Amino acid sequence: MEIAEKFRPSHADFTYEAKYGIRNWQGGGRASARETIGRVAAGAVAKKILSVLYAEFEIVAYVTQIHEVVAKINRSTVKGKEIEKNIVRCPDTVAAKKMVSLIEEIRNKGDSVGGVIECVVRGIPPGLGEPVFDKLDADLAKAMLSIPATKGFEIGSGFAATRMRGSQHNDPFEIRGRRIRAATNNSGGAQGGISNGEEIYFRVAFKPTATIAHEQKTVTSSRKQTQLAARGRHDPCVLPRAVPIVEAMAALVLCDHALRQRAIMIADRGMSSAEQ
Amino acid sequence: MEIAEKFRPSHADFTYEAKYGIRNWQGGGRASARETIGRVAAGAVAKKILSVLYAEFEIVAYVTQIHEVVAKINRSTVKGKEIEKNIVRCPDTVAAKKMVSLIEEIRNKGDSVGGVIECVVRGIPPGLGEPVFDKLDADLAKAMLSIPATKGFEIGSGFAATRMRGSQHNDPFEIRGRRIRAATNNSGGAQGGISNGEEIYFRVAFKPTATIAHEQKTVTSSRKQTQLAARGRHDPCVLPRAVPIVEAMAALVLCDHALRQRAIMIADRGMSSAEQ
Amino acid sequence: MEIAEKFRPSHADFTYEAKYGIRNWQGGGRASARETIGRVAAGAVAKKILSVLYAEFEIVAYVTQIHEVVAKINRSTVKGKEIEKNIVRCPDTVAAKKMVSLIEEIRNKGDSVGGVIECVVRGIPPGLGEPVFDKLDADLAKAMLSIPATKGFEIGSGFAATRMRGSQHNDPFEIRGRRIRAATNNSGGAQGGISNGEEIYFRVAFKPTATIAHEQKTVTSSRKQTQLAARGRHDPCVLPRAVPIVEAMAALVLCDHALRQRAIMIADRGMSSAEQ
Amino acid sequence: MEIAEKFRPSHADFTYEAKYGIRNWQGGGRASARETIGRVAAGAVAKKILSVLYAEFEIVAYVTQIHEVVAKINRSTVKGKEIEKNIVRCPDTVAAKKMVSLIEEIRNKGDSVGGVIECVVRGIPPGLGEPVFDKLDADLAKAMLSIPATKGFEIGSGFAATRMRGSQHNDPFEIRGRRIRAATNNSGGAQGGISNGEEIYFRVAFKPTATIAHEQKTVTSSRKQTQLAARGRHDPCVLPRAVPIVEAMAALVLCDHALRQRAIMIADRGMSSAEQ
Repeated sequence: MEIAEKFRPSHADFTYEAKYGIRNWQGGGRASARETIGRVAAGAVAKKILSVLYAEFEIVAYVTQIHEVVAKINRSTVKGKEIEKNIVRCPDTVAAKKMVSLIEEIRNKGDSVGGVIECVVRGIPPGLGEPVFDKLDADLAKAMLSIPATKGFEIGSGFAATRMRGSQHNDPFEIRGRRIRAATNNSGGAQGGISNGEEIYFRVAFKPTATIAHEQKTVTSSRKQTQLAARGRHDPCVLPRAVPIVEAMAALVLCDHALRQRAIMIADRGMSSAEQ
Repeated sequence: MEIAEKFRPSHADFTYEAKYGIRNWQGGGRASARETIGRVAAGAVAKKILSVLYAEFEIVAYVTQIHEVVAKINRSTVKGKEIEKNIVRCPDTVAAKKMVSLIEEIRNKGDSVGGVIECVVRGIPPGLGEPVFDKLDADLAKAMLSIPATKGFEIGSGFAATRMRGSQHNDPFEIRGRRIRAATNNSGGAQGGISNGEEIYFRVAFKPTATIAHEQKTVTSSRKQTQLAARGRHDPCVLPRAVPIVEAMAALVLCDHALRQRAIMIADRGMSSAEQ
Repeated sequence: MEIAEKFRPSHADFTYEAKYGIRNWQGGGRASARETIGRVAAGAVAKKILSVLYAEFEIVAYVTQIHEVVAKINRSTVKGKEIEKNIVRCPDTVAAKKMVSLIEEIRNKGDSVGGVIECVVRGIPPGLGEPVFDKLDADLAKAMLSIPATKGFEIGSGFAATRMRGSQHNDPFEIRGRRIRAATNNSGGAQGGISNGEEIYFRVAFKPTATIAHEQKTVTSSRKQTQLAARGRHDPCVLPRAVPIVEAMAALVLCDHALRQRAIMIADRGMSSAEQ
Repeated sequence: MEIAEKFRPSHADFTYEAKYGIRNWQGGGRASARETIGRVAAGAVAKKILSVLYAEFEIVAYVTQIHEVVAKINRSTVKGKEIEKNIVRCPDTVAAKKMVSLIEEIRNKGDSVGGVIECVVRGIPPGLGEPVFDKLDADLAKAMLSIPATKGFEIGSGFAATRMRGSQHNDPFEIRGRRIRAATNNSGGAQGGISNGEEIYFRVAFKPTATIAHEQKTVTSSRKQTQLAARGRHDPCVLPRAVPIVEAMAALVLCDHALRQRAIMIADRGMSSAEQ
């Protein structure tokens, strides 16, 4: 078969061949996004644990941009059920329609598009995340960049922070509902790598699908220059299907830190009981 | 002292207090960027190991943007010694001058600015990175987001990929210098989480310094609303000093993967010797 | 079925029920020695890697005691092929015959017996093992006690050391074959948790098989006192079948340390090249 | 100085030199039992956590044998305060006197002796320990063999099990105090690698101290045959001082498993709440 011999551009074909001397070009190997089924299953367990530990826990991910179509979404009020109302998993119904048409058009051209998924987590108390290396945002970044086709991660203000001044970017503290709260949330729910009790939110950049019907330059395993055009049905945009994966990976990271924090609290209790 | 009682906005003061019941407001604790001295020391060792393993290994990080001043830099030819020619560690001398003036101006206003650091690594062979979770880009993302004041990470085309089509974004393969090479490098040197032999490059977003002389709203440990304005000398822009940290963390991640890959090659040799 | 309701004495039935609220009484669960098949498979890979790294590497395990029958074996000359000459995997043919008869007799009585397996590893250079926690002997001890039915581990002189004086027990150094060698080997090949280049040897105690035809007192899941006698064929002595498991686990531990040591040597090379 | 040049027999001198090309012959390095001070400090924290989690938690270690002097101790009733009544930390006062005289005599001869420390832990509920590799007994074995000068570990019946029949060795279950209990405790408190609610007890073999005043054969760093006799004060028997180390390491292993088990129970709770 053709793709048994030709390296698909921007796929894991060449790198797997280079690393292992073998690759699974049929599509079911470890470089296939099919492996993420296990992550979604594990994420379901993580969400249940988080619900038991934190009564107000809620996690919602959604498509916020596809190519140049950018949705308007109120991050603080959006609910999980709104996401499932359309096939692009975008809660802005006007933008969702444009996204559906765009994907259809791109599919007909044998091309593909990327976009941005945003995820917001509510009900996480202050205290999750470990100083220095296992910061909460660092672990979220690793989890997101481990998802196939991702190219970037930003938390809170993200890259936009680079064009703000400290006086605009800093989140003032205030007393609200008898608790210490941040008045704004450019931090995205973590300060110094530790959750601060505010919404945790971040965005993940996905590249356009690598497999396209367009004819592309490439080389064969025997190092001959050639052309390749994918045949059959191919998904021209992975984002709608990546939404549950982003949610699952975020839940796994948070659950991990919740259990680590719980162990710290137990130890703490040991300490204070000793003083009595 | 004032900051012993008041939570500094967008600092780790509040989250450390929430997690540990104590915080180091004097500035030398684990949330201080002073801890990165150990990373830079370890990074020097990692760079030496990488130089022994890969003859053409080279790593260069530099400031590419401060607030709205964006530098023009040829990523593929820039050298380490150009970085050290000015105090903002930006190899574009025209932009560097503007950055220096901007920082001076911001300092006088008692405010602060953020920006972007780019890092490029040359001479890494194909094969580094582990499938599924420990992808090379995932580990780089975690390493970068563990650096204080970072808000985002992008590799290769990064967030710009979200506005490209597959036919523009894919990196065609070609034969160059008798090796299989990518003709363009939107992938940023890793495909399927494994290095492909091209330059590895990525960008890291830094927020404006949290400590500013501007008066800000905040609360005290005893939950009273108050105001805070930092006194004394404070760095209005951390980027120039973060350049060696980015380099060190990248070297540590790559060295780690180089040693893991080396172990795989040894095992591999064991396998084939068995067939003889 | 009977054993679905009754806890088998000295089995993992009760503890699994207590931990998980469920147990696999049919015999194929994680507490069954059947899981060790994966260890033996992995051990075969580890042995190959060790053979590539160390030209003189050799590992031999054998039964040295069953109940009160103790074999006489020259630990330093015994070879792998001698082990496979009889069904009890004991290279002392006289003792092996007695062991076979003893096991036959015990089987007829519906009872079971335990014993000792010894393992000797040759050709490991000085330097494997990590200070403080991951000492070579500590990792071997953990590996052996993770094998089902084991009750003890001793390395070198082992428990016999407790009745020796320092002047008898210490291994004097001498120059032999132009290398620094230990004249005796009470240490069992590791000093300060690091291999010293001598033979590594240790012994593992196995208890008598828990499943016996004898009638035994026990209780049911519903907490009623009852009796239990195993039916069908049961192995009255696990030792002959445990020999390859001991070998495999030892190979896995040594291979792990060999790869860790190799990484250290690479780093080392980096250091010295820097001085040139 | 003499020991800067001569390898002390059965010490870590030679192996550290072989591994690192350097050794700390002054006595304060990582191979010195002085490092165990950190273990004892951490063990104190672990004991407090265990006391908070398990109301009846109690841990006692003591010397049960020195050279050929074997103490008679009722393992199930011995208390911590009895241990501290004499300088050898042996609760059998008759045997303790003999041990003191023996150590005195051995010291005068410039020699040294080893022995056995036993440790018993009460109040650990059923359920601690993880199947397959992280069995409770496996982790205890590793912890004990990581203590300097240890040569063996046995849990419950230990090496004596190798000379028993299944019908003698199995621990029948019975109902006692309304709970399922083992009538005997040859298992030593763990079955299938998981605690069964009975006393956990094990023994650790210590070799005679390596540093002795006796003249011994050895070689120098420059590979010349020589003699060595330690000067100054040296402890002819490490056992009394090793008692708190054994206790600390056991507490650390148990605390680790207690926290892992607690995390499992939380997850479990998540599961059942989902059914409602």
